[in-house]
Amino acid sequence: MSAAPQEVLIAGRWRPASTNATFTSENPATAQALPELYPVSSWADCDAALAAANEAFITLRATPAETIAKFLERYAERLEAVKGALVEMANRETALPTAPRLADVEFPRTTAQLRSAAAAARDGSWSLPTIDTKQGIRSCLAGIGPVLVFGPNNFPFAFNSMSGGDFVAAIAAGNPVIAKANTSHPGTTRLLAIEAQAAAEEVGLPPGTVQLIYRTSHSDGEKLVADARVGAIGYTGSRSAGLKLKAAADAAGKPIYLELSSVNPVVVLPGALRERGGEIAEQFTGSCLMGAGQFCTNPGLVLLLAGKETDTFVAQVAERFRAAPVGTLLSRSVAKTLGESVETLKKAGAEVLSGGAAGGGKGHSFGNTLLKVTAEHFLAHPHALQTEAFGNESLLLVADNLDQLTRAIDSLEGNLTGCIYSDKAGEDEPAAARVAFHLRPKVGRLLNDKMPTGVAVSAAMNHGGPFPATGHPGFTAVGIPASLRRFGQLHCYDNVRPNRLPPLLADKNPTGATWRLIDGAWSQGDVGK
Amino acid sequence: MSAAPQEVLIAGRWRPASTNATFTSENPATAQALPELYPVSSWADCDAALAAANEAFITLRATPAETIAKFLERYAERLEAVKGALVEMANRETALPTAPRLADVEFPRTTAQLRSAAAAARDGSWSLPTIDTKQGIRSCLAGIGPVLVFGPNNFPFAFNSMSGGDFVAAIAAGNPVIAKANTSHPGTTRLLAIEAQAAAEEVGLPPGTVQLIYRTSHSDGEKLVADARVGAIGYTGSRSAGLKLKAAADAAGKPIYLELSSVNPVVVLPGALRERGGEIAEQFTGSCLMGAGQFCTNPGLVLLLAGKETDTFVAQVAERFRAAPVGTLLSRSVAKTLGESVETLKKAGAEVLSGGAAGGGKGHSFGNTLLKVTAEHFLAHPHALQTEAFGNESLLLVADNLDQLTRAIDSLEGNLTGCIYSDKAGEDEPAAARVAFHLRPKVGRLLNDKMPTGVAVSAAMNHGGPFPATGHPGFTAVGIPASLRRFGQLHCYDNVRPNRLPPLLADKNPTGATWRLIDGAWSQGDVGK
Repeated sequence: MSAAPQEVLIAGRWRPASTNATFTSENPATAQALPELYPVSSWADCDAALAAANEAFITLRATPAETIAKFLERYAERLEAVKGALVEMANRETALPTAPRLADVEFPRTTAQLRSAAAAARDGSWSLPTIDTKQGIRSCLAGIGPVLVFGPNNFPFAFNSMSGGDFVAAIAAGNPVIAKANTSHPGTTRLLAIEAQAAAEEVGLPPGTVQLIYRTSHSDGEKLVADARVGAIGYTGSRSAGLKLKAAADAAGKPIYLELSSVNPVVVLPGALRERGGEIAEQFTGSCLMGAGQFCTNPGLVLLLAGKETDTFVAQVAERFRAAPVGTLLSRSVAKTLGESVETLKKAGAEVLSGGAAGGGKGHSFGNTLLKVTAEHFLAHPHALQTEAFGNESLLLVADNLDQLTRAIDSLEGNLTGCIYSDKAGEDEPAAARVAFHLRPKVGRLLNDKMPTGVAVSAAMNHGGPFPATGHPGFTAVGIPASLRRFGQLHCYDNVRPNRLPPLLADKNPTGATWRLIDGAWSQGDVGK
Repeated sequence: MSAAPQEVLIAGRWRPASTNATFTSENPATAQALPELYPVSSWADCDAALAAANEAFITLRATPAETIAKFLERYAERLEAVKGALVEMANRETALPTAPRLADVEFPRTTAQLRSAAAAARDGSWSLPTIDTKQGIRSCLAGIGPVLVFGPNNFPFAFNSMSGGDFVAAIAAGNPVIAKANTSHPGTTRLLAIEAQAAAEEVGLPPGTVQLIYRTSHSDGEKLVADARVGAIGYTGSRSAGLKLKAAADAAGKPIYLELSSVNPVVVLPGALRERGGEIAEQFTGSCLMGAGQFCTNPGLVLLLAGKETDTFVAQVAERFRAAPVGTLLSRSVAKTLGESVETLKKAGAEVLSGGAAGGGKGHSFGNTLLKVTAEHFLAHPHALQTEAFGNESLLLVADNLDQLTRAIDSLEGNLTGCIYSDKAGEDEPAAARVAFHLRPKVGRLLNDKMPTGVAVSAAMNHGGPFPATGHPGFTAVGIPASLRRFGQLHCYDNVRPNRLPPLLADKNPTGATWRLIDGAWSQGDVGK
């Protein structure tokens, strides 16, 4: 063990936490504790971070978007310069493969996201500048205030509270961020924060623009999200912890954007199975077991219609699950929760076709688990049978007919995604239309002939969905510029003198390319031109 | 008293409520109960309305936007045909003047809003259709599901739960509405609902698209907003009732858009007072006493700097307040709450310059009340001294210097509006900049040289603001198309086959004029053109 716990980053300075409590993280591949100690911050640290963020926001409000864009770009460059150390630390803390996953997929996605957010900040179109010249009223979104980010365990870079989707969206929208490290990869988060702080200093952002604490008590977490100095909160993680934070934030009137559980239903219609059942079994197995299934959009529920082709598909998938290597899970806690969730599903009547018990892989692991249930049974126990089992698990639901299948869809809670596989000849078309109608209001993203894992960074992406997949069905956590709008408050200027308007709302287009809604028409021009 | 209570509108049918409990409304100008009885619905009515709304939403999801637009237009026409009766009933229930207020201002605003929402529904640009052709991902907002609307007491037409801003926004976004009448004008709401239902039938909208209940128990109200069949809630009214509904809706993960209290700070700088103090006193008195001050954006707090010009201004305003006729308040309850709020302000140390006691006008009334306090005192009791006194009241705050004045602003809760008056010569410019910087994050709409009453229907309007003025600072309740987005859920289509896309996301622009964000550029064209 190292002598002193790692330092927290508060008000632009790395300093010891005001606490004696510490924790360690673990290498999931060895199930051994890692040597570094990290502090569990007391309220004094939280309070200091809030005060510094509040101060930083005052300066940021008057900081040109160009400086914020430069920060994001310099941060990306600095990360690239220490990529090796980052990938090594993330691998040690998460057991995610160094390559291709960490080095070749997640890392470049993260730096691309930083640069894309920089471009959005510089451009300003994300804020929907709206100008009514006749009535002299102009409005746009502007920073909402200090944003707390609680990142998940499964993307140590791309959703890290110090570098991921919520971080870049909050910063690009003009807000300071207080990052709460995910406790399973505090070392990775610390390395990111070192570069973020250095980049912030380089471009002259105020101290307190980026801050890091590792962990707090649950009660301090609830106190944090409800603090008057907070603008908004981004949280990705477990449903139980997320709902507690939501209750605290809601009571204080603080917008909180949650990403909680999702089973991501996939409907595979008979024509598609007859046409390309083997191919779909392959795709599904890959999607479900990749990264040991630890994705928010992991296909955890497959809806099928009873029949010969479904029997074949089920057998093919079960065989693949049994044959596939068992991956290492992200942490002891993920392994424990996965086991509990599978138990819940089994107790509710799901039949085990593969896996179902701990072990089989390196370190923390759980057998590749395929479960099966009838739609009739599912409809009798819809709550228990849509328990999310975060990891390498999926539940197959077999319905007697389409009516029963759509009723099973109707019984679902909100989900991030929903997929429909149908044949190319058009035989499945009427069934596909009916399924889509039932599935559409239940999911944020509807897919055809494609598995839900893989969330493209696209302006049209919705990584969101109805509660309890998220806290509000109108927002997306991925996709620039829309994800920035979560962290904006609407600023209207009524009869405000021209010299006092912010650049985005002045007559002259501030960049020559910003899209603004001028008298009902989107334009990149100046007002009156 | 009429023999039987009025009927509720559920599932397209006027029928007796399943209850024996009733209430009456009152003519505020005579303080006498009106003859009609209205039912207090039991849960059975709520449940039936929710079931019908749920059914209606299924049909509405497949209904062309054109039909919804036609409904809004036919409804506006039908209202115009019965305008006389509507104005008479509204006058009887609210004591608001028949003309100009009801007939010449609020009524035409309401029908214009219906037509503007119709245009927005037909056009579809409100839904921010976004197309990424390279990655095959497309998204737009679509109806969120049945919307419950709780309307306020102060706009019997323009914010009525059956015809106002939330109603038109929810309908135009493709949702059914369950209107809960404001209990001070149930008769007006009933007359509106008769026309709404008839218009819905004319154009063939499903039964349950528009429904009306008059009143429920508090516990049924909380059960309503948390029901699984609800998509979202719009509430405008008292802070205490609103926060209870918010807690219930939040716990169920239902978006609730609130408009609660606001004192709408107005800062008048010394140069402006020297230049045109009399004119500002006149504007302020008009804005504050118009409609007996019963506006959400009533200027309830005026911040001034100590000095001779401020002394003169205070004396001028006090004189005008004493000389102005005392208006009739909207209800017994408004009069009671106004009295209590003024007592709270007085107890907290506000000095009475005018009014301060009940009576002085016709029916329910309260003297035109002007209060005064020092900034030092305000800063010692910021909570009590920013109590909203809904009605013909305002509090003048006099600060010793600009530093103290900005600290008073910093101590404010979120508000709908904030105004700055400054001189034209530029003497006030440095002070105005400093005040604007402190005021900006506290308010949804910042005004210059203009009182906050009068909320223009503009695409750039923000009738919203930070909590507790509203529940989320990113949304506006007034201003089409932005107000519609509160009632949308984000629907993403990933790799979805072209023939299955909704018209707004097809390659061909569905109207030839809808604005869509195609590969990063706003366009009214087809994809690829």
